Amino acid sequence: MPTSSSPVDVDAAAAALGGAVVRTPLVASPALSERLGCEALIKAELLQRGGSFKLRGVLNRVRAMSADERARGVATVSAGNHAKAVALVCAAEGIPATVFMPRGASKVKVDAVRSAGATADLDNDDAAVAFARLAAFVDRTGALVLHPFDDPAVIAGQGTVGAELIADRPDAGTVVVPVGGGGLIAGIALAVKARAPGARIVAVEPERAATLTAALAAGGPVQVEHQATLADALAPPSVGELPFAICTRLVDDVVTLSEDELVGGLRVAYADCKLACEVGGAAALAALAGGRVDGPAPIVAVASGGNIAPADLGRLLA
Amino acid sequence: MPTSSSPVDVDAAAAALGGAVVRTPLVASPALSERLGCEALIKAELLQRGGSFKLRGVLNRVRAMSADERARGVATVSAGNHAKAVALVCAAEGIPATVFMPRGASKVKVDAVRSAGATADLDNDDAAVAFARLAAFVDRTGALVLHPFDDPAVIAGQGTVGAELIADRPDAGTVVVPVGGGGLIAGIALAVKARAPGARIVAVEPERAATLTAALAAGGPVQVEHQATLADALAPPSVGELPFAICTRLVDDVVTLSEDELVGGLRVAYADCKLACEVGGAAALAALAGGRVDGPAPIVAVASGGNIAPADLGRLLA
Repeated sequence: MPTSSSPVDVDAAAAALGGAVVRTPLVASPALSERLGCEALIKAELLQRGGSFKLRGVLNRVRAMSADERARGVATVSAGNHAKAVALVCAAEGIPATVFMPRGASKVKVDAVRSAGATADLDNDDAAVAFARLAAFVDRTGALVLHPFDDPAVIAGQGTVGAELIADRPDAGTVVVPVGGGGLIAGIALAVKARAPGARIVAVEPERAATLTAALAAGGPVQVEHQATLADALAPPSVGELPFAICTRLVDDVVTLSEDELVGGLRVAYADCKLACEVGGAAALAALAGGRVDGPAPIVAVASGGNIAPADLGRLLA
Repeated sequence: MPTSSSPVDVDAAAAALGGAVVRTPLVASPALSERLGCEALIKAELLQRGGSFKLRGVLNRVRAMSADERARGVATVSAGNHAKAVALVCAAEGIPATVFMPRGASKVKVDAVRSAGATADLDNDDAAVAFARLAAFVDRTGALVLHPFDDPAVIAGQGTVGAELIADRPDAGTVVVPVGGGGLIAGIALAVKARAPGARIVAVEPERAATLTAALAAGGPVQVEHQATLADALAPPSVGELPFAICTRLVDDVVTLSEDELVGGLRVAYADCKLACEVGGAAALAALAGGRVDGPAPIVAVASGGNIAPADLGRLLA
């Protein structure tokens, strides 16, 4: 079983995942390129199975489970995209799954978890409570905690996004990535810097859930006071320990965005880029379109997810 | 100058367009594949510059214009996507452009035409009136009519969609394409059948604008009585002469969809495929998701455009 001292092996993850994940396209964006005056591309990870990058990390972790671990099942905490990925992977592999979600989790994500056959526990006022109840559940059941970001196998799985990106464009100058717990950016930073050491990695997070900014200021992960953000996918109580250790070495810049800037990014995603993102999934596009990103071209924005209720989307776009 | 007796040369178009168009991705759709029980892919042509496939045909035609023709300018009729492509290409090439659009044309499309610097004439009750007024304008000005679909250079440009598709997946079994005037499907059918003669070509059109169905029944293009459809991009008064001649040889099946089926396809595009389509642009997805397409796998649906006002989209998805 991987532990936080295990190496993060992106190449092994790429081999393990094989054809079970979508090799998502790196899409040219003439509209963003014209706006910025330099070449902009989008790694369209919202086109991944399950509608977000999360499947990669979950599948890589689950494939390393023993038969005994599989029998005891999997449990996790997630606002939605990780939960959906856990539910899909566990259903496919015949593993019982229980997901602790904050009470206000997006209904479309809760429904996705339940329709895949997993148990969704919503009796949690916020993510911190959900983590505490997860710990109690695991004590009782012996289930394996499939952490959404603080796990080397999960980070390695997410890193395959970066490996694909550099395989498609070895000359990528700047890679812009949304941050919640930091698993995606940590994996991408490791994969990109190993392949293109000169590439710049820019983190983007909501002002209202600036977990990486807080961690960098404090010298380590700290609990961030909970404030509601439309980018529900980017709002865990803190960045992870292992992601932080990687980000502090490899992330070159951190951009924080207001709620208005995030919604502006959503509109850019739809109107200019024709990608049906969720708010958090469009955060890198928001930073780019808003002129908040410095770095050499070509600039790649990772569009990380698209799980949003149609009615919520309609309200935000109207 | 190409005429309707010129050959439709897709290879020459591909060479002429080069890097000026986006080589759009052929995206795996696990959600559609699971629903259908066979491999389904999406040619995501809504990610093209200008938000639809139209740029290909326009650019291919404009690049063949003489200096004298360029000075007299370009005129056309379009409900929007062709108009936007004409405006973008003519702006880039310094050619005056006038577009006759039906009065009810989508505001987002009219705005796109005007913001690119072209003249949009909206004094037209419907597309038939627009075509008549175009003829009078051309008599006065000597402008070149850049027909949205009844032109071999335009059809050849659209055919590059099919050439890319088969280059990516030479084993494509069935290709599903929305039909308005028929330029896209004619070009794709020529390109696909030349490269993969066994592949099946399926046309999809709105019941309320079933121009190809009417033409096939009559043995040639006929004016279809105008009925409003949410798929505004698929509602010219009739299919073109040259597209019809190609389709009658190469199209294997025609599916017509109700307005409810079209909106269902829009929802599939957003919720399952994460692509920000317009209604007409999602018609092939609608046919596929609705179980209306027969043919061997892998099945490729062409998502042809994404130009829809955010407020309209919000209303349809809510």
